[in-house]
Amino acid sequence: MNNSGAYQEHLPAVPEWLNKGDNAWQMTAATLVGLQSMPGLVILYASIVKKKWAVNSAFMALYAFAAVLICWVLLCYRLAFGDKLLPFWGKGAVSLGQNYLTRRAAIPESTHHYSNGTIESPMNQPFFPMASLVYFQFTFAGHHHHFTGGLWGGGFLYHWGVIDYSGGYVIHLASGISGFTAAYWVGPRMKTDRERYVPNNILLMLAGAGLLWMGWSGFNGGAPYAANIVSSVAILNTNISAATSLLVWTTLDVVYFGKPSVIGAVQGMITGLACITPGAGVVQSWAAIVYGMLSGSIPWYSMMILHKKSTLLQKVDDTLAVFYTHAVAGILGGLLTGLFAEPDLCELILPVKNTKGAFYGGGSQFVKQLVAALFIIGWNILSTTIILLLIRILIPLRMPQEQLMIGDDAVHGEEAYALWGDGEKYDATQHG
Amino acid sequence: MNNSGAYQEHLPAVPEWLNKGDNAWQMTAATLVGLQSMPGLVILYASIVKKKWAVNSAFMALYAFAAVLICWVLLCYRLAFGDKLLPFWGKGAVSLGQNYLTRRAAIPESTHHYSNGTIESPMNQPFFPMASLVYFQFTFAGHHHHFTGGLWGGGFLYHWGVIDYSGGYVIHLASGISGFTAAYWVGPRMKTDRERYVPNNILLMLAGAGLLWMGWSGFNGGAPYAANIVSSVAILNTNISAATSLLVWTTLDVVYFGKPSVIGAVQGMITGLACITPGAGVVQSWAAIVYGMLSGSIPWYSMMILHKKSTLLQKVDDTLAVFYTHAVAGILGGLLTGLFAEPDLCELILPVKNTKGAFYGGGSQFVKQLVAALFIIGWNILSTTIILLLIRILIPLRMPQEQLMIGDDAVHGEEAYALWGDGEKYDATQHG
Amino acid sequence: MNNSGAYQEHLPAVPEWLNKGDNAWQMTAATLVGLQSMPGLVILYASIVKKKWAVNSAFMALYAFAAVLICWVLLCYRLAFGDKLLPFWGKGAVSLGQNYLTRRAAIPESTHHYSNGTIESPMNQPFFPMASLVYFQFTFAGHHHHFTGGLWGGGFLYHWGVIDYSGGYVIHLASGISGFTAAYWVGPRMKTDRERYVPNNILLMLAGAGLLWMGWSGFNGGAPYAANIVSSVAILNTNISAATSLLVWTTLDVVYFGKPSVIGAVQGMITGLACITPGAGVVQSWAAIVYGMLSGSIPWYSMMILHKKSTLLQKVDDTLAVFYTHAVAGILGGLLTGLFAEPDLCELILPVKNTKGAFYGGGSQFVKQLVAALFIIGWNILSTTIILLLIRILIPLRMPQEQLMIGDDAVHGEEAYALWGDGEKYDATQHG
Repeated sequence: MNNSGAYQEHLPAVPEWLNKGDNAWQMTAATLVGLQSMPGLVILYASIVKKKWAVNSAFMALYAFAAVLICWVLLCYRLAFGDKLLPFWGKGAVSLGQNYLTRRAAIPESTHHYSNGTIESPMNQPFFPMASLVYFQFTFAGHHHHFTGGLWGGGFLYHWGVIDYSGGYVIHLASGISGFTAAYWVGPRMKTDRERYVPNNILLMLAGAGLLWMGWSGFNGGAPYAANIVSSVAILNTNISAATSLLVWTTLDVVYFGKPSVIGAVQGMITGLACITPGAGVVQSWAAIVYGMLSGSIPWYSMMILHKKSTLLQKVDDTLAVFYTHAVAGILGGLLTGLFAEPDLCELILPVKNTKGAFYGGGSQFVKQLVAALFIIGWNILSTTIILLLIRILIPLRMPQEQLMIGDDAVHGEEAYALWGDGEKYDATQHG
Repeated sequence: MNNSGAYQEHLPAVPEWLNKGDNAWQMTAATLVGLQSMPGLVILYASIVKKKWAVNSAFMALYAFAAVLICWVLLCYRLAFGDKLLPFWGKGAVSLGQNYLTRRAAIPESTHHYSNGTIESPMNQPFFPMASLVYFQFTFAGHHHHFTGGLWGGGFLYHWGVIDYSGGYVIHLASGISGFTAAYWVGPRMKTDRERYVPNNILLMLAGAGLLWMGWSGFNGGAPYAANIVSSVAILNTNISAATSLLVWTTLDVVYFGKPSVIGAVQGMITGLACITPGAGVVQSWAAIVYGMLSGSIPWYSMMILHKKSTLLQKVDDTLAVFYTHAVAGILGGLLTGLFAEPDLCELILPVKNTKGAFYGGGSQFVKQLVAALFIIGWNILSTTIILLLIRILIPLRMPQEQLMIGDDAVHGEEAYALWGDGEKYDATQHG
Repeated sequence: MNNSGAYQEHLPAVPEWLNKGDNAWQMTAATLVGLQSMPGLVILYASIVKKKWAVNSAFMALYAFAAVLICWVLLCYRLAFGDKLLPFWGKGAVSLGQNYLTRRAAIPESTHHYSNGTIESPMNQPFFPMASLVYFQFTFAGHHHHFTGGLWGGGFLYHWGVIDYSGGYVIHLASGISGFTAAYWVGPRMKTDRERYVPNNILLMLAGAGLLWMGWSGFNGGAPYAANIVSSVAILNTNISAATSLLVWTTLDVVYFGKPSVIGAVQGMITGLACITPGAGVVQSWAAIVYGMLSGSIPWYSMMILHKKSTLLQKVDDTLAVFYTHAVAGILGGLLTGLFAEPDLCELILPVKNTKGAFYGGGSQFVKQLVAALFIIGWNILSTTIILLLIRILIPLRMPQEQLMIGDDAVHGEEAYALWGDGEKYDATQHG
């Protein structure tokens, strides 16, 4: 009895176009990207917020992961990419369908997650985000991708030659801007929450951050839909940029504030990852060090120094500083790609011939990247505003005051921890 | 000095039968399946139980992972699959041996984990589970697989044409039923524990749940032992079913109870994953949405509504509601596969020619699935009862009363958290 | 519009030497190895220490991950492997460059992590580890690899035929010895910390331990830089050894102390993983069981029995018992490889013809392994001592007394948990 051959006898040869090495990597990369959201961002956001919002933050990230995935299958995929209604099985469509689904859905998903970061607590829960942000994803997918284009689409910016290697512009710049805009309309947290908003669990935050970092290898490495040279370069550069940025941010923390903050280290890691994304597969590794040095310092400066001086920036209550870690880091990465895109690597993956950064003589590339940034900024301020104002007609954007005061228990009937006494929740009258 | 070539000079060509893309995916899938147990289920179960049982739940899942793996290598593999004693290296056996070991061991492992869920706290620790459940695995592997068959084996149900794509019947239905039976014999938790059993750490539970979900891509995607079209379809469907089920369960929670529960969302995710498993690689993606809609509602109804009305169901103390999340979801998935198995996909992976679900004209397939379910239910009630009664002669099934009262500290001399004061354990006299 | 073909039209064929299955596995294995450190060891070390050192332990592991990675790219890679300055893209160098970077950087990284374990709290933070241990990595990479050699290098021990399959000697023996030496020079923790040092969060420790275990599949499976038979064998053996060792350690705990400790189980898991590493891909699976049985008992004996009798061992304050879990387990594994290295498997991966363990007639192999161990021990005591004494001229090795008393809050201005009241940190005056 040869059990091991049970499949081999029956399995037909895979079609010509399907390279099993590429397919193995795609399935792996998609899973790594899934890990970034669930549990990565679910626990990262849940543990970096104040205790009373832990369950709520987790819930938002979790339902969004599920909701965006289903929206994508049912409608948005078609809005964004054209001809097909559902990525069903059939003439060579399935394996790619799988790729589309899980990795591509990551783009609206991540955008949603990151935008949420700005309006963590005051948003009316959970009906407003269900109504608004899922709806926002539809718009996002339907229009944004078409116009902005990624590497994969037919958007006009793409055909004009704008480089957005793994969707970094679409995710980081768009989420930073639309999140900031939404935070403006939803309004700030309660005064007591603004004044004291200590992360409830730094160790679990690091668990989430680690999955985010390593999952990024799937995100940037998975962008070529192949296990080729570009995917390897992208992973190398992603790690170099994240590590450099983390070290630069930490060094600045030590120099200016006297102490290395582990939360600061994670912020630096995130800006390093966000920044390299638009260029990960098209720049050389020395350039990735430049990305990391700038992503560890410019967002740091804007968040730690500029923010405190600017009344405009303080006017909007950006709960998790997403504007700095994503919008600033995203635009920085897109512009740097206009400088450092390497001709030979561009040749391997881009559709427009002779693409190259200013450093290699392609001065116009920098201009293209800048125009794309301005387009994305304008588009997101406008569309987010319109959508939120429309939704405000149906549902209040802001959580009722009593929910704002109590937090998780009022919204979900659940509290994050039951660690006291005989497995009780924290009770101030009993536990001090 | 060309270091990079150090291996390439020496490496002999791999044998003809070994496709490196398939092998890369198998090693990855096996690792993802490992992550489902350790740390996935270890931390999921540890944090969803009451604080006093956290270490114990973790320990049970952890030792079981190790014990089942070793039993599998030493004896059960042979009992289940026939000719070979140990998966040693030799004529093409090793790489497959590795597949067998890690992914296939996942089946008894998962069954064990899930069955444990019903009898979390009252089971005599750790000698009873060591004796009984590891022993149960032997039986499970030796008989269950032979008779029930999976895709890989020579069981009579398999050759008759029952579809159990990735072992969903064997894992979910069997674990739900045998766990429920064991819970009957072991008896209920203490009264105070039944009345108040709050999850001690919802955020860490989500970390475990996320690893369980993403690891499932390795489980269902790894079933064909290849990086082919079926594996991609299976991953796509797994994610669709889980996401749909999570959203349906959450919606029902909101409609009936007024609040979205994040624990409910995780229950819905688990039922969605369990339900799709028997059909993941042989149904189309629209059908995966049907699986998800039913797995998010029927187990919800049985757990939230039916359970409260049924004195029979309340008689057995099913600590983690495994009966609903696994047995009900498992049988549902097996029967749905009898409806929706798609002929072309079946052709790619099943041994019986012209297999198809009722929806495609194969009415007899539904009957086969139903017969298989009844066989599994009967077999598990019977064999679990016999094994437990035999073991009861040697070891009390139930933990001594004083251990039941104290929990972790009495059983393991360890407590989950030491977060108070200068790194102390919780002390009611000191910390309220 | 055929979007799915967007890449396929443009993608040039990958070069001859690049097998996509191998490359898919390398990218995956590198990511798994990354997960071992971040978040694996970051959260494992952070939650196994006393609460007041949680953030500090996490920070050390995190910055080290980043710092070593960058050192590796900028300088150490060249010191260790020769001809090239940076792993830039070009004639077939990139994909391998990526391999070098992430997986090979894992070796100095892991060594650093494990060495840190011995001197967790008293080390002057963070300037001393930044100065000393990053500097130590340079030395480590520059000299250690050259002389000791791994499978990949040109070291004299390598060419003499010493077997160190996946760098287990370099990582585990070296880190255990150099950590122990450093602990001698840095001096012990505070007396109160030595007396009471309870892990602050056992559940999160298990999350880290699980990622460490599963990531090890990437570490040992990734060593051949290919998805071939050796990588599959290595993964199988890694899991068998870890599981056996965990069970043996737990059994000894039960027999001697009456209770199964989950921390003990994790110690056993770690020794099982460390022990198999020097031989994972070159021994048969029955031998892996022998490795596991010895790694679950000899380090257990040395740590639980011998340590309490030996005033010499007690003289050095080895915070996390790294000497036992790494140095003892590492030397054990290296010597066992001298016994059990299987000729056919050796042929597949080693450069020296006719390599085989004593069990297969190669008695000289055991002698070679023993000489290598003595060389590594001597080299590490010497070089660590010299480096620390040099650094002591510039920076005190020991943290100031007030930092030692307060812990995280003094060093980083952060505390691990804010779970009390309205999201407050623990306050003894308020919370008992």
